[in-house]
Amino acid sequence: MSHLASDRTKLLARVRRLKGQIEAVERAVENDAECGKILHLVASIRGAMNGLTAELIEDHLNHHIRDEADPDTRRKGTDDLAQALRTYLK
Amino acid sequence: MSHLASDRTKLLARVRRLKGQIEAVERAVENDAECGKILHLVASIRGAMNGLTAELIEDHLNHHIRDEADPDTRRKGTDDLAQALRTYLK
Amino acid sequence: MSHLASDRTKLLARVRRLKGQIEAVERAVENDAECGKILHLVASIRGAMNGLTAELIEDHLNHHIRDEADPDTRRKGTDDLAQALRTYLK
Amino acid sequence: MSHLASDRTKLLARVRRLKGQIEAVERAVENDAECGKILHLVASIRGAMNGLTAELIEDHLNHHIRDEADPDTRRKGTDDLAQALRTYLK
Repeated sequence: MSHLASDRTKLLARVRRLKGQIEAVERAVENDAECGKILHLVASIRGAMNGLTAELIEDHLNHHIRDEADPDTRRKGTDDLAQALRTYLK
Repeated sequence: MSHLASDRTKLLARVRRLKGQIEAVERAVENDAECGKILHLVASIRGAMNGLTAELIEDHLNHHIRDEADPDTRRKGTDDLAQALRTYLK
Repeated sequence: MSHLASDRTKLLARVRRLKGQIEAVERAVENDAECGKILHLVASIRGAMNGLTAELIEDHLNHHIRDEADPDTRRKGTDDLAQALRTYLK
Repeated sequence: MSHLASDRTKLLARVRRLKGQIEAVERAVENDAECGKILHLVASIRGAMNGLTAELIEDHLNHHIRDEADPDTRRKGTDDLAQALRTYLK
């Protein structure tokens, strides 16, 4: 990754928040919670997922593509992003 | 929830698989993995999230709405679903 | 459909607004507009699409499922919705 | 845009196909078609929208970023993409 450490700390906090949301769904299913409540928990995760994806792509664009002077490194960064977006938008 | 136990077991397996995918992202960020790899892991989660959401909504439609004879219970089930979809599609 | 006429008018206005947004993309591509501008136009359509989908599902839930006393009509309405959501979340 | 003419022809065909799908929804609402049918038409548009978005981003990455030697042009291309993705993933 080799991002700025500050970006990495922010990213890690976001990933852990998302994990916490999934764990809340897991507990709700285990405890046989009301279906409406589980639906609500799952629907809320989508925003967190999109936010994480957006932040990650933006970090990647800024650190591996935008100001990357070496053409080969830049091409690799661009191709990695293109492939991830193809999976995401499939 | 009060779904069939078989639905619940399937649902729990799906939630745990999704948690495993998030944990793989967490480890990759902690270990300073290549950014392209992290992007790929995150992009793949979207399909799992959509699958979980689709299964949950389908279970909810089948168990709390479709064959629910009591109008009040059905209305509650419908309103829960409408609210979750509003959050999801926001 | 057989929705309330007011719902239908609102829905039609939304569909036409969305068509106008697609036509703006069409013109931009025809006129060889800047790629950044086209990207921006396309990205904005997603919100409109989600809004249309949410409104349509909510109308469907309210008029064909929520207060539908006839079990067969209700089952058909529920199955139509389940199938559409499966396509949407695929 | 200044893309290869072949990319532009392909892109335009895709935009027009999408417009055709929206017009089918418009006609269905005007003719008071069955709600289940309208739901199905709208749900199918999402795949076409994602395909268009993916193609556009890939063209943009390839023609304005990947092999762009001029740092300023490349920065502008990268910033345009970042902004579009922020809107898309909001």
